Amino acid sequence: MNQFESSHARNQYEIGAADISAIVQTVRDHKRFAFLVVRGDRGELQIVVDKSKLEIPPVGSFVRIQGDIVSSEKANSGIEMQCSSIALTSKPAALPPFPLDKPIEASLDLVLDLRAVSLRNNYSDAVFRCQSAIGNAFRDQLHYEGFIEIHSPKLVGGGTEGGADVFKVAYFDREASLAQSPQLYKQIACGAFGKVYEVGPVFRAENSNTSRHLTEFTGLDFETTLHRDQHELMDIEERFLGRALKYLSLFQRERQLLGFDIPSEVQIPRISWQEANQLVEKHGTSTPDQTHDKAIGQAAKLEFGSRFLFVYGYPEDEKPFYVMPSSEPGFTESFDFLVDGLEVSSGGERINDLALLEERMKAKGLAPEQYPGYLSAFKYGMPKHGGAGLGLERVTQCLLGLHNVRESTLFVRDPRRLDP
Amino acid sequence: MNQFESSHARNQYEIGAADISAIVQTVRDHKRFAFLVVRGDRGELQIVVDKSKLEIPPVGSFVRIQGDIVSSEKANSGIEMQCSSIALTSKPAALPPFPLDKPIEASLDLVLDLRAVSLRNNYSDAVFRCQSAIGNAFRDQLHYEGFIEIHSPKLVGGGTEGGADVFKVAYFDREASLAQSPQLYKQIACGAFGKVYEVGPVFRAENSNTSRHLTEFTGLDFETTLHRDQHELMDIEERFLGRALKYLSLFQRERQLLGFDIPSEVQIPRISWQEANQLVEKHGTSTPDQTHDKAIGQAAKLEFGSRFLFVYGYPEDEKPFYVMPSSEPGFTESFDFLVDGLEVSSGGERINDLALLEERMKAKGLAPEQYPGYLSAFKYGMPKHGGAGLGLERVTQCLLGLHNVRESTLFVRDPRRLDP
Repeated sequence: MNQFESSHARNQYEIGAADISAIVQTVRDHKRFAFLVVRGDRGELQIVVDKSKLEIPPVGSFVRIQGDIVSSEKANSGIEMQCSSIALTSKPAALPPFPLDKPIEASLDLVLDLRAVSLRNNYSDAVFRCQSAIGNAFRDQLHYEGFIEIHSPKLVGGGTEGGADVFKVAYFDREASLAQSPQLYKQIACGAFGKVYEVGPVFRAENSNTSRHLTEFTGLDFETTLHRDQHELMDIEERFLGRALKYLSLFQRERQLLGFDIPSEVQIPRISWQEANQLVEKHGTSTPDQTHDKAIGQAAKLEFGSRFLFVYGYPEDEKPFYVMPSSEPGFTESFDFLVDGLEVSSGGERINDLALLEERMKAKGLAPEQYPGYLSAFKYGMPKHGGAGLGLERVTQCLLGLHNVRESTLFVRDPRRLDP
Repeated sequence: MNQFESSHARNQYEIGAADISAIVQTVRDHKRFAFLVVRGDRGELQIVVDKSKLEIPPVGSFVRIQGDIVSSEKANSGIEMQCSSIALTSKPAALPPFPLDKPIEASLDLVLDLRAVSLRNNYSDAVFRCQSAIGNAFRDQLHYEGFIEIHSPKLVGGGTEGGADVFKVAYFDREASLAQSPQLYKQIACGAFGKVYEVGPVFRAENSNTSRHLTEFTGLDFETTLHRDQHELMDIEERFLGRALKYLSLFQRERQLLGFDIPSEVQIPRISWQEANQLVEKHGTSTPDQTHDKAIGQAAKLEFGSRFLFVYGYPEDEKPFYVMPSSEPGFTESFDFLVDGLEVSSGGERINDLALLEERMKAKGLAPEQYPGYLSAFKYGMPKHGGAGLGLERVTQCLLGLHNVRESTLFVRDPRRLDP
């Protein structure tokens, strides 16, 4: 049992005296007793309350409950609490506008508008507990493999990675940008420390209102020295995914609630960009109303029976300046990781030669003189290296089978939404 | 041995065939053999090269080295590699302007200007390996205690926490702010999940150029339901610190290099704000050229022999609107954590009553109508709760005994510095 598993096991309710802080999810009122289901930070618990002695708190209120947890054949979880004291911790001014223990039927917009209270719903609770476990799996896996964690700045002066989708910040008497990813910094750090990862926000000023785009999301990034080629990076992602699924398998209540499956093994097909296009043609999955990635995902599902897919060797014009060119002219040592045809990660080997890097920058319309700090790493030499970045919210969406990435985003940021 | 310790142990060099990517730190040239010290992602290693068979790479270059690691009485670490192949992974255009294996004597400004290469110095390497371990300790401790990790947005619409030090962002046709901390979001999340933590950037548009201020740093934040009072929060910080020191005790090479001590136990004195002021008077540590916190730190050192100190019960006008008032009028249920008189953390119990919260907002000159998302959490009730935030760079600075917080910041952001 590793540390994640033992911590998880430790944080369950146990038989014996207990004193918990919780929200009241449901109240079933009987003649002498009331049966509450409350949710505390160790999950749900049934509470038996003697109405002759104690007052019943309203649904949605926060309470501190003391009593004895005993085994019970009637309770779903096999345990319940015989309550000896209940105290409201604050008097709510209103009842929750959504049920706490059933899927919310309101529009996603309303759910996000009232995020402070919609997050108290069981299903949201399940999503974000699982998301936390996925983030843990990422860091545990990389730490296990000898990576160290870095924190690179989000306020960036000088040149960005390219593309117009950059937020501008007033920085004293200057202008700064918000980092579109930790790319340039994690490469510098890779030159210093060899193997690095970062978990942090990334910002995209893209005016897209689709079910898969956000203007701010959580990047899971890593960068490492390479011995062979970019397949080492796909190996790392595969091992991360295996660990994430192992952690998620502990979340039985959440899996039942959200209705998602855990594949028993992770073996992800790897095909070249050309092979992907041939598969789309073979299975006829290209349609005008969906992205090319979706068509590839459907074709791979038909061909391999796999929701997961690596596509590698993209053309140069589809990838940023820092990606290593392949031996085949016009192509690159890059890959995407698709789940059900949704891109959840991009990565690849990076250029480590200063002259080639400057040449590729210019070809992409960037001015090398705007990147003195980045390029100085290459001036003093750089190891053969590569890396990848995943979007935590998209990974969560895919593994949990959610329809919209907003469902796996704690507080959504898109072109229309900046609150709460 | 917990997971951190076993991962740490796993990532050391072992006797046997090896294939490593590393930077050449030093070259000692003898008649037939050359002795290199290289640093790969598993640390330093002495390499023995037969000059009749292999070419010696320049200091500062990146190499891939293959050979056999054998035990050696002559090498400091007890092992060395008999090298069978060396290949340069890129040809550096210049030699590093700093030594890689000795403290850099240049000014801090120059070191930060040339961060891409100064990070390759041994001492920097040691600092950031330790910092990664401190971050690991924070998350491991909180996960062990049943907390889940959240990711709150850094782009914020509407009201911020107060104070003028907010960066403004052009957000499509609107204006957004950069979050000064995850405060308001972690409170909302605490209402949903009970125990939450976050590791992420925080932004302060403060025009201060001191040795302890940054405009962007890494916040270690947590928020939890409370049973008793804010001493539960100090308990958590104490346990985190204990775990951090335990992890750091594994880093023998880094401790030797940086020359810092690990206290054998963590028992932090806790005194009230009034008691702190009395101590300053008693020991006469208040001087015009240092902060009041420094004076308190010196007095506590004289009184308790402790570098670490909790001061609790600050006056209302020194703390933000959301801090719970004490039973003693004009004071609050808040605390600071000082190390050598440097504030590395602030925390406290929070107000969980809507009416009181709105009253305190108004008293601090904030308009409640600018915080609809935050206040709606309180409208539907909130548990008794509190939390704290630590600055990772300051914690690292203090534990490692560094003079300036910039030394423990990977890429520094202050009013004058936005690059690299």
